[in-house]
Amino acid sequence: MTPKPVSLTEKFALFSEPWQPKRIGKVDGYDVRIVRIRGEFVWHSHADADEFFFVVEGVLRMHFRDRYEDVPAGSLIIVPKGVEHKPEALTPETKMMLVEKSETVNTGDGPANAQTVADPEYI
Amino acid sequence: MTPKPVSLTEKFALFSEPWQPKRIGKVDGYDVRIVRIRGEFVWHSHADADEFFFVVEGVLRMHFRDRYEDVPAGSLIIVPKGVEHKPEALTPETKMMLVEKSETVNTGDGPANAQTVADPEYI
Repeated sequence: MTPKPVSLTEKFALFSEPWQPKRIGKVDGYDVRIVRIRGEFVWHSHADADEFFFVVEGVLRMHFRDRYEDVPAGSLIIVPKGVEHKPEALTPETKMMLVEKSETVNTGDGPANAQTVADPEYI
Repeated sequence: MTPKPVSLTEKFALFSEPWQPKRIGKVDGYDVRIVRIRGEFVWHSHADADEFFFVVEGVLRMHFRDRYEDVPAGSLIIVPKGVEHKPEALTPETKMMLVEKSETVNTGDGPANAQTVADPEYI
């Protein structure tokens, strides 16, 4: 075992495409992921997994069916399992760190689409 | 269900004492905790839980038996289960966000001591 510090700035510098989560660490059976987002994602939910979103840069607008919440850098929001949501970057680009079960597929439990990443790359 | 944004700045403003982790969220069976640290903690390990430390402000020095790693703000380190470690604030105070199993006791698997917090307050 050799636990090493992981710099978010260094990891974000390794990729530029939006909506492509990357794994940067593992806590038991949970992934730590980072992702850049631009524009809107798709509506989805995760039947068996809560999802933790921490905003590193920019502003996240998390849409729910009955409202939305704006989450600025330095804040987090946890979406409970089963709750439909749609992330949107309120700034041109928003950078986030996620913690969720390693099996979690970004587009949730529905059919896969062009934005689906079932097994994120480890960087 | 009403997921709400959680501001780390606002939550840190609610307490000042060091080494007293506070719960600010839950992801499945895992806590999101924040903690202020000053000086050194005790050597300990967690037999069944990896521990995620994200440095929000200041610098964390994580000691291992054979070396140490310095973790600045914006970086994280994950200590695998079973690995002895001792956190230290390298700055006068260091602020951290933790993710770990909700059952995790901050001083690990050894006997409780003055720094032990077995059931952190929810703020």
